[in-house]
Amino acid sequence: MDRQYPSVALERAVNEFAQLPGIGRKTALRLVLHMLSRPEQEVSQFGRVFSTLKQDIRYCQCCHNISDSDICEICANPKRDNSMICVVENVQDVLAIENTMQYSGLYHVLGGVISPVDGIGPQNLEIASLVERVADGGVNEVILALSPTMEGDTTNFFISRKLAPLGVKVSVISRGVTVGNNLEYADELTLGRSILDRTPFT
Amino acid sequence: MDRQYPSVALERAVNEFAQLPGIGRKTALRLVLHMLSRPEQEVSQFGRVFSTLKQDIRYCQCCHNISDSDICEICANPKRDNSMICVVENVQDVLAIENTMQYSGLYHVLGGVISPVDGIGPQNLEIASLVERVADGGVNEVILALSPTMEGDTTNFFISRKLAPLGVKVSVISRGVTVGNNLEYADELTLGRSILDRTPFT
Repeated sequence: MDRQYPSVALERAVNEFAQLPGIGRKTALRLVLHMLSRPEQEVSQFGRVFSTLKQDIRYCQCCHNISDSDICEICANPKRDNSMICVVENVQDVLAIENTMQYSGLYHVLGGVISPVDGIGPQNLEIASLVERVADGGVNEVILALSPTMEGDTTNFFISRKLAPLGVKVSVISRGVTVGNNLEYADELTLGRSILDRTPFT
Repeated sequence: MDRQYPSVALERAVNEFAQLPGIGRKTALRLVLHMLSRPEQEVSQFGRVFSTLKQDIRYCQCCHNISDSDICEICANPKRDNSMICVVENVQDVLAIENTMQYSGLYHVLGGVISPVDGIGPQNLEIASLVERVADGGVNEVILALSPTMEGDTTNFFISRKLAPLGVKVSVISRGVTVGNNLEYADELTLGRSILDRTPFT
């Protein structure tokens, strides 16, 4: 839209929404007008939640996942296997792996992957703290569960090199054809990888 | 996602975003995590803008469009033709019509259309104030530019009945095939209407 909004307050609110990823100016305007149709209390509460968001959110001092306390529920849970650490990029990945119900160890949230294009180097990620955790002892296996992209692979390689002197077992989640899909829809790279990484039929 | 979020503050922020139309819980989580990666100042400003949004936004006392002053820029503009009033549902429609550069009259923003299903009756819309504006004199034509839906048609009918005693010309924007599209893609109702409403070829 070329035309200016009829009000500065409206434009300011639209600009705030339009800054968010995946939200264009038309959607932003629609969201703001939706808010204007809601009760004042509801809208001001929306604002209050975000004005203190950064102060309210805390991170687990052990695994760096978002947490309400200094040590998150997963790290503090005595039933979890603390000899395994699963390395992930972010909170969504922790939630996704937890939903599989297939993992009972601990996590380590890196906060991203190494990406020189975006200016993210190893020092911007929680890699040093991971090495420290493993060096403290008690860890038998580190599972790398980063995205199967070039950045993820680079990060996997960097971490495995850092962990090598500590003699801990380092593994990476398997890559192959997706469960429940027709084979013809799998891309060549994935299909090729799934043949190379074939496992004994049981 | 079945699993609970690892933090109450995170869950609260996700809930706020997920209330907005077209934003599900996964997108909401992605937006919140994006915000956490931004500087604190930026995030708290986002919050502040919305905590005072309802107080900051004002409406034109004449046409009920969003405005920074008691009378909006369009109503206050002496170059606009104040003998024509274009009746629209909301602010987006004003912006859309302004972008066409084909209209130089004034507007009247209803704030919606009559929709018994949603509990919106004529008394919830700016219809009485429209009748008052026309009764005050100086208006030659009222153009109804509501959505071509059943609710829009009902509202058109209601307004035209209310305006009938005032002897003002009431027109409705034309309906027909969309400009630049192949005829074969037009739906039957629209195509039929465009034949009935054919205009002399010039």
